[in-house]
Amino acid sequence: MALLYSYQQLFTFSKNIFLQIGCSEANAETASKVLLSADLRGVDSHGIARLSGYIRLWEVNRINANPNISIVHETPSTATVDGDKGLGLVVAPAAMQIAINKAKNVGTGWVSVKNSNHFGIAGIHAMMALEHDMIGIAMTNASPLVAPTFSVERLLGTNPIGVAIPAGNEPPFVADFATTTAANGKLEILQRKNLDTPAGWVQTKTGEPSCSASEVKNGGALLPLGGDKEHGSHKGYMLGSIVDIFSAILSGANYGPWVPPFPAYVPMPENMPGEGIGHFFGAMRIDAFRPATDFKLNMDNWIQRFRSAKTVVGHEKVIIPGEPEIAIKAERLNSGIPLLEAVVKDLEELGKKFNLTM
Amino acid sequence: MALLYSYQQLFTFSKNIFLQIGCSEANAETASKVLLSADLRGVDSHGIARLSGYIRLWEVNRINANPNISIVHETPSTATVDGDKGLGLVVAPAAMQIAINKAKNVGTGWVSVKNSNHFGIAGIHAMMALEHDMIGIAMTNASPLVAPTFSVERLLGTNPIGVAIPAGNEPPFVADFATTTAANGKLEILQRKNLDTPAGWVQTKTGEPSCSASEVKNGGALLPLGGDKEHGSHKGYMLGSIVDIFSAILSGANYGPWVPPFPAYVPMPENMPGEGIGHFFGAMRIDAFRPATDFKLNMDNWIQRFRSAKTVVGHEKVIIPGEPEIAIKAERLNSGIPLLEAVVKDLEELGKKFNLTM
Repeated sequence: MALLYSYQQLFTFSKNIFLQIGCSEANAETASKVLLSADLRGVDSHGIARLSGYIRLWEVNRINANPNISIVHETPSTATVDGDKGLGLVVAPAAMQIAINKAKNVGTGWVSVKNSNHFGIAGIHAMMALEHDMIGIAMTNASPLVAPTFSVERLLGTNPIGVAIPAGNEPPFVADFATTTAANGKLEILQRKNLDTPAGWVQTKTGEPSCSASEVKNGGALLPLGGDKEHGSHKGYMLGSIVDIFSAILSGANYGPWVPPFPAYVPMPENMPGEGIGHFFGAMRIDAFRPATDFKLNMDNWIQRFRSAKTVVGHEKVIIPGEPEIAIKAERLNSGIPLLEAVVKDLEELGKKFNLTM
Repeated sequence: MALLYSYQQLFTFSKNIFLQIGCSEANAETASKVLLSADLRGVDSHGIARLSGYIRLWEVNRINANPNISIVHETPSTATVDGDKGLGLVVAPAAMQIAINKAKNVGTGWVSVKNSNHFGIAGIHAMMALEHDMIGIAMTNASPLVAPTFSVERLLGTNPIGVAIPAGNEPPFVADFATTTAANGKLEILQRKNLDTPAGWVQTKTGEPSCSASEVKNGGALLPLGGDKEHGSHKGYMLGSIVDIFSAILSGANYGPWVPPFPAYVPMPENMPGEGIGHFFGAMRIDAFRPATDFKLNMDNWIQRFRSAKTVVGHEKVIIPGEPEIAIKAERLNSGIPLLEAVVKDLEELGKKFNLTM
C-alpha cells in the first residue's frame, strides 16, 4: 500500500524540517532537492524515507547544521574539502561545484572530501556537470556491510559510483550503481515480502552462501558485484576498494570497517583513523578533449545504436543508463510520489517533534 | 605441457622481431617490455602469445611501426593523442607519460587516445604512475565480444580497467580487470580442456544462457560483469560503456560495435565512425590532495586490515589486488616463463619469417 504525495508538498516539509534544525534557507533547499531527487528517480530507499535518519544523526550531534565547508589543500585541478560534519546532501553539491570550477579553468577538476555524512544518491551530484557540457563523476564510501571476496568480515560499504555524460539530442547517459551485486534497499524489499534473494547477493555471518533476505540484519554480509570468485566478485571488491580509497584515503576520512554507520543508534567504530565519511568528485570539460559538437554527435550515435540492438526474447530494448529514470521523474512529478505507510508514519512522527504537518 | 623460457630470451626475441618490422630501438624495447609484463604478471593470454598477432596486423598495414604520436588538443590537465596507427604497446606508455607530466604541473593529467591498437594489459600502464607517487588509471576499448544486458548483439569489448595506487611499506594496490564476468582468455583455457563454463559467463547467438566454452566462437557473446540482470549485469554493462566512451568518444576513436578486431583475418566493420581503437589514461598526484606520507600511512593500514580479515573456510587470506602478481613475477624471473607448445610453435614460425631463432 502506497500513498501519493506531491513533490512540492514533500519538498516543503523536508525544507521546513531542515530549517528547524538550524540549516540556512539555501542549505535547507539544497538538502531537500538532493534528497527528493532520489524519490523522483525511483530510488525510494535513498529519498524522503531517510529524512528522519538524517535528523537522528543531528540529534546525537553527528551532523552540523551550519558547516563551514572549506578547501584544506589544492592545486589547479584538485582540492581536498573538509565538510565540517555537514549534511552530505549539502557538502556534496558544494564539493562538486569546486570540481566544476576547476574544470572551467584547467580542463578537469577532482575533489576528495572528508568529514562528511551520507550524500543521498551519487548520480544527482554527477549530473551537476551536464549543464556545463562536462562529464561528472561522484562516489562515496559508506558504512561496512560488504564482505570482500574470501572475507567473513564486513569491510566495505556499498560504495556507489555515479557517472553522467552529456549527449546531443539524446538524453544524457547517467550510470549510478552500488558496487555490490544488489543494493541494500533491494534486500529490504524482499525482506518485507518474505522472499528469498537470488544466489550471490549475501552470505551468512560465517561466510557461507545464503539466499535469506535477513542475512545482513543477522550479521551476514552483502557480496561485491559478481557474488563469488567464479563469477567475478574480486572485480566488485576491487571497485568498492577504489571508491573507498579515492573517497577517504585521499581526503583523510574514515575508510573500510571504520566508516561511521548511518543509523544513529549504532555505536561508532573504535579507533577511527579519519574524519567522518568520504566522497570523491570529478568534472571533465568535453571541449578539453574535443569540440563538444563532435562528441555529442558520436554520443547520440552510440546511444541510438545500443538502444536499437536486437534483444533477447521477452525484452523490448537495450536500456540506456539514465533513460528509465526520466520517465519515472515525469510520472512522479505529474501523479505524485508514492510513499509506503511505514514511511508516512515515520514522517508524521518527525513532523510532531517540530510542530510541522506534512 | 609448458616449456620454460627465460625472460631475457623472450625479450630479445620480441625486440628483434619488432626491430625487423621497422620499429626504432627504443620502441622495440618498450613494446617488448609491455608485452612481456603480461607474462611476468601471469596474464598469459596478453603476453608473448600475442606477438604473432601484432605482426599480422602490421602485415595487413593496420599497424605503423614508426608512428608520429602527437597531441592534437590539450588543456593544462588534459590531452587528446593521435596514435598514428602505432602499436598500442608503444602509444600507451607515451600517452601515460603525458598524463604524468600534466599531473606534475597541475595536480592531475587525463589523456584520451585515438588511432591506436591493442595495448597489452591495462595494469602495466597504470603502474607507470607509482614511481612518481601518483595514482595511475588506464583503460581501453576492444573489439565487440560482449552483449549488453538484454542484447543479443555484441556491442562492447571486454574493456578493461587498471588502477594503481601507491602504498608505503606495503606493495602498491594494483587492480586490473575486464568489465566482463570472465575474460576471453579464461574461456580459451576451458575450451582447450573441453570443460563447461560456470553460469553467467556467456550466452548463445540467440541470447540464451549457456555454459559452453565455445559459445563466443560460435557467434554467442561474453556477458558483462554480473552475468544477468538479477545478478547485476547492468552494472558491468555500464562499466564497459564508460570505458568505451572515455576511450573513444572523448578522443574520436571507434566505439561500440565498430572497434576494429585484433585478428588480422577478421574483416573490418563497415561505416566506422572514428580512427583505430581508443584508450584513456589518468594520473593523480597524491600530494595534490594530501601529504604523500599521510596517505601512505593510511594505505598501509588499509592493506594490513584487509589482508588480516577473518576468512571463509578454505581460504587463507583476503587477497590485496596486485599482490599475487608480485610472487608470480619473482617466480618467473627466477625459473622462467612457461609457454604452451602451441605458442612455442607459433613463435618459431614467426621467427622463420624473419630469420630469427628463439
